Amino acid sequence: MANKTVYDLWYWGAIPGRGEFVRLALEAAGLKYRDRAREKDGEDAMLRDMRAHPQCPPFAPPYLVAGELVISQTANILLYLGEKHGLAPDDVGGRLWVNQLQLTIADVVTEAHDSHHPVASGLYYEDQQEEAQRRADDFRNQRMPKFLGYFDGILAERGDWLAGGLRWSYADLSLFHLIDGLFYAFPKRMGTLAREYPHAIGLHERVAGLPELQDYLKSDRRLPYGDGIFRHYRELDKA
Amino acid sequence: MANKTVYDLWYWGAIPGRGEFVRLALEAAGLKYRDRAREKDGEDAMLRDMRAHPQCPPFAPPYLVAGELVISQTANILLYLGEKHGLAPDDVGGRLWVNQLQLTIADVVTEAHDSHHPVASGLYYEDQQEEAQRRADDFRNQRMPKFLGYFDGILAERGDWLAGGLRWSYADLSLFHLIDGLFYAFPKRMGTLAREYPHAIGLHERVAGLPELQDYLKSDRRLPYGDGIFRHYRELDKA
Repeated sequence: MANKTVYDLWYWGAIPGRGEFVRLALEAAGLKYRDRAREKDGEDAMLRDMRAHPQCPPFAPPYLVAGELVISQTANILLYLGEKHGLAPDDVGGRLWVNQLQLTIADVVTEAHDSHHPVASGLYYEDQQEEAQRRADDFRNQRMPKFLGYFDGILAERGDWLAGGLRWSYADLSLFHLIDGLFYAFPKRMGTLAREYPHAIGLHERVAGLPELQDYLKSDRRLPYGDGIFRHYRELDKA
Repeated sequence: MANKTVYDLWYWGAIPGRGEFVRLALEAAGLKYRDRAREKDGEDAMLRDMRAHPQCPPFAPPYLVAGELVISQTANILLYLGEKHGLAPDDVGGRLWVNQLQLTIADVVTEAHDSHHPVASGLYYEDQQEEAQRRADDFRNQRMPKFLGYFDGILAERGDWLAGGLRWSYADLSLFHLIDGLFYAFPKRMGTLAREYPHAIGLHERVAGLPELQDYLKSDRRLPYGDGIFRHYRELDKA
């Protein structure tokens, strides 16, 4: 069934955003999917499609339509893909462990976003720049070391991959993108932290070098960062 | 096995916090558990215990120890309990649906917390009160109606419970506590919104009346709000 399934991924077309965590899993697993909102008039189609599932409406993109299933929340989509396509261990402990890591990554993603939008997503950065300065200071100095140290410690215990063993899980792909986004948004700070957390940085390099991702990472299916979750504002970055 | 299992729940002892979502599920399901950090010297024991699982460390409480398993992240703990004890539908669609709802509730919980701590968890409210005023305005005016409207619409479609059918799932218990916390933190605003989202308010009342929760809700196992996620600051609340 897997090879015949064509998934419909729905996510805003202009930024990698949270959709990227799903895209990386689909791409690394070699699964067929349509990136629906990036097709012609796709975002209008998405806004219509979101209203077309009153029994199980997505709260927000990304969401994945898989036959009869409408699955939203990034970690939930990955839980589904992980179980169905072997992108995580299949014993109960391993499955929950990878889900836990994904949820922790999701928490960092929210905090990375809020470092430039601490007051309201609906306001411009310029309208909350003063608050962003304070929040970004805390994010850089307290939160980034705490989160990176957490993942670094796990990799130091478990080896190349977050769930141990010889193969990546979807949480490894997500941690790659998180670290990648932090390098983009906070290059100075990451220059300092990279020396302290070599296992986490090694994971970033290992995923970047995965044969199954080379075609994708060079393609225009991989979107540039721009005005998404990970943004580079020079004034918010310090070593 | 279920009746013999005694779970160890670990969570800060002074506030309901995120631990409360787990407690409600354990209590409503009639499962035996020890609330470990609330025992004598429990928080010291928790800090030691958190370091005792280097292969699968919790990033933060709450976490649940179930035999060999160490399960953290609230939604992940509930996913586990839901599957094991029938606290959610067991078909793949129903299971993912309830997980999705739980993750959306978790997003609101984070935003409710950040409405009074928009700069840093590690700073006092008084040191970020100005920023909190702006963030709470947005939370009350934009986010609360959006989230409540979302859950209200689902209940309008599905009936008494978020997953449909005749019995609550763990997401219903969590939505109860979320709405309960919002009533505590924002009584004026909830006074206005309660009239607009009767299905969500009805859910709150239904869970509050569940026979299996009466003993718990009256007991001192149910902690008062205090200085946790849901806080009442008069200046942050408006109708």
